[in-house]
Amino acid sequence: MSVYRFQTVNQIISGENSLQSLGEHLYTVNRDIESALVVTQPFCLELDFIDTIKNQLQARGIKVDVVTDILPEPTVSNIERVFQDICNEKYDVLIGIGGGSVLDATKILSVLKTNSQSIRDMLGTDLVESSGIPTVLIPTTSGTGSEVTPNAIVTIPDEELKVGIVSRFLLPKLVILDPVLTLGLPKPITAATGMDAFTHSLESFISNKANPMSDMFALESIRLISSSIVDAYQNGADIAAREKMLLGSMYGGMALTAAGTAAVHALAYPLGGKYGIPHGEANSMLLPHVMEVNMEAITERLSLVAEPMGLTVSGLTPEEAAKQVVAQIVQWTETLNIPQNLKKYGVQEEDLSALAVSASKVKRLLDNNPKTLNLKEIESIYRKLLA
Amino acid sequence: MSVYRFQTVNQIISGENSLQSLGEHLYTVNRDIESALVVTQPFCLELDFIDTIKNQLQARGIKVDVVTDILPEPTVSNIERVFQDICNEKYDVLIGIGGGSVLDATKILSVLKTNSQSIRDMLGTDLVESSGIPTVLIPTTSGTGSEVTPNAIVTIPDEELKVGIVSRFLLPKLVILDPVLTLGLPKPITAATGMDAFTHSLESFISNKANPMSDMFALESIRLISSSIVDAYQNGADIAAREKMLLGSMYGGMALTAAGTAAVHALAYPLGGKYGIPHGEANSMLLPHVMEVNMEAITERLSLVAEPMGLTVSGLTPEEAAKQVVAQIVQWTETLNIPQNLKKYGVQEEDLSALAVSASKVKRLLDNNPKTLNLKEIESIYRKLLA
Repeated sequence: MSVYRFQTVNQIISGENSLQSLGEHLYTVNRDIESALVVTQPFCLELDFIDTIKNQLQARGIKVDVVTDILPEPTVSNIERVFQDICNEKYDVLIGIGGGSVLDATKILSVLKTNSQSIRDMLGTDLVESSGIPTVLIPTTSGTGSEVTPNAIVTIPDEELKVGIVSRFLLPKLVILDPVLTLGLPKPITAATGMDAFTHSLESFISNKANPMSDMFALESIRLISSSIVDAYQNGADIAAREKMLLGSMYGGMALTAAGTAAVHALAYPLGGKYGIPHGEANSMLLPHVMEVNMEAITERLSLVAEPMGLTVSGLTPEEAAKQVVAQIVQWTETLNIPQNLKKYGVQEEDLSALAVSASKVKRLLDNNPKTLNLKEIESIYRKLLA
Repeated sequence: MSVYRFQTVNQIISGENSLQSLGEHLYTVNRDIESALVVTQPFCLELDFIDTIKNQLQARGIKVDVVTDILPEPTVSNIERVFQDICNEKYDVLIGIGGGSVLDATKILSVLKTNSQSIRDMLGTDLVESSGIPTVLIPTTSGTGSEVTPNAIVTIPDEELKVGIVSRFLLPKLVILDPVLTLGLPKPITAATGMDAFTHSLESFISNKANPMSDMFALESIRLISSSIVDAYQNGADIAAREKMLLGSMYGGMALTAAGTAAVHALAYPLGGKYGIPHGEANSMLLPHVMEVNMEAITERLSLVAEPMGLTVSGLTPEEAAKQVVAQIVQWTETLNIPQNLKKYGVQEEDLSALAVSASKVKRLLDNNPKTLNLKEIESIYRKLLA
């Protein structure tokens, strides 16, 4: 790897109650803001986060509209419907507050507003024609990392696919990382999104495109998440653990932007596209099994994440250390009650070969995987989740 | 520290010979570039770096002008003169390639072109009125970190001062980190700029404004620089060491943007402003002495950098580890032949009290210092450099 590329956002405000400083930093996004659109989901309204935003904006004379119609794992038509509702309004900034689905949808709405392209025109890399309305992205889960990536994922139900838009124009102008917003996350979401974030960093670290910059973010992310995921799960009100998770999740986004994810994500997309399995859940289910299959190709790299994971590995061989890493992931899967079962989503033995064919087409990500996986290997990974 | 802010650039291309990919990434800076201005110094012309840039741009039909009139530690009037030469030309991008002086001057020229303000109007924080012409910054020293900071420093000779412009509009659109450009750096510049970069990171780490994000960049920078500065000094052609230095220097810029520098920098500015001592040299001279004086207030923090510096400190108390850190810095000062002598610049014993008064006025940075330094302490630090 001689030449590599890193992209990120210009400005991040972080720390407990940092949402309350949105207003004072908004001038850095756009000096003359008259109207703002807040994109979110109903639970954020209930939790008063939206009032915190509205109060600050209205105190500055800014008109605020709110849409709450973004669905989990949004489809193209869901986002297009929301766009129809807002396309005649003038907004100087879009503020997305929510999980990855909301953040991705906010990015897409921002460029839909300024381009005459449809969402389908934008699917792929660098196809968005020009910059969008400036955005502020505020995650309420520690998982996606979407707040710092140039990516947005949409579901295309008729093709049973999840597909990405990758464009520098999707990067926001400002990110706010306030761990207070994550205090109320239910346990299963803390678990699935947290393991998703860990997956971003681990896959970036073993990616064929890993490089010195992605490695720094991946290892720091692994360190932060490993030291806090169980605490955040067991005691959701642990603000220190929540802050580490949020920072670790963001660094995971930075790592994956620089190095790409790999087979876990390639196998997760068909589970989302065909069976509607939430992204974090799909990734966290697959993670231990894909790592076991990858093992022979990544022993050395896996052994290097043992120390950041807090494992005691002095005196161990790389093989032994790498095994401890996978054992820890398996252990987390149990401690965090990550569902290891595709059956409840309706997946059956006879569906596996079609799933494997779909996953094998996610070449962009499989190319990053340190081991080439054939159809049989992919199918056997899925089969472990039917046991 | 509950809420903290991080700012950086959108895009970094890094790695050996990455300068050769400038052309292919230029579209991300500005889609329709017809003309470019390269800002540099004569040595870059001699080293063919400018031809590498010109060839790529001209192959894309872009008209290229070059100015080489930026002086080391540029004064307001130096930059204004260069601006007079270019103010009637239309440029779609400014490309700064050189050390910190060139990068800072490029940032300032970019906002002079689009604002009706003078440089003096811009001195201070957030006073630049609007964004400038997009810039690409390409460092040829591993020291300044300027390529990723929103800061630019100018010398004001009539006031014997060096003063900063801080504005998000100074951040470039693209950074290229090519270690090949630093292979020919003379030993004294490798030493002084390298220790300058180390100073950025160490001061950020002990700063009163240190936070989890600045700490990550500071520690990684310290790790990279500590493992490569002697190799880069002793064997300038060691590309692996040069690459680590360049990355470490950039992370130093990220760390200082997030946490600020402290007393070393406050004491260095009068040495630059009054006696023209290059910034890197002034910082590297002062570093061990300021750390010795700071010691009582930073024992714990200093002890934490021992391991990233590669020191063996297991079993030591924090006090012992911190002393080893300072001892290593003193050792580097000797190994790298950092001049420890203000006399050759004409500084005399009777000048010290005025220097101390000047330094004490750099309150913005002294406020970051973990120990409050009185005039007598500042003077005694300068006196050590007259021995």
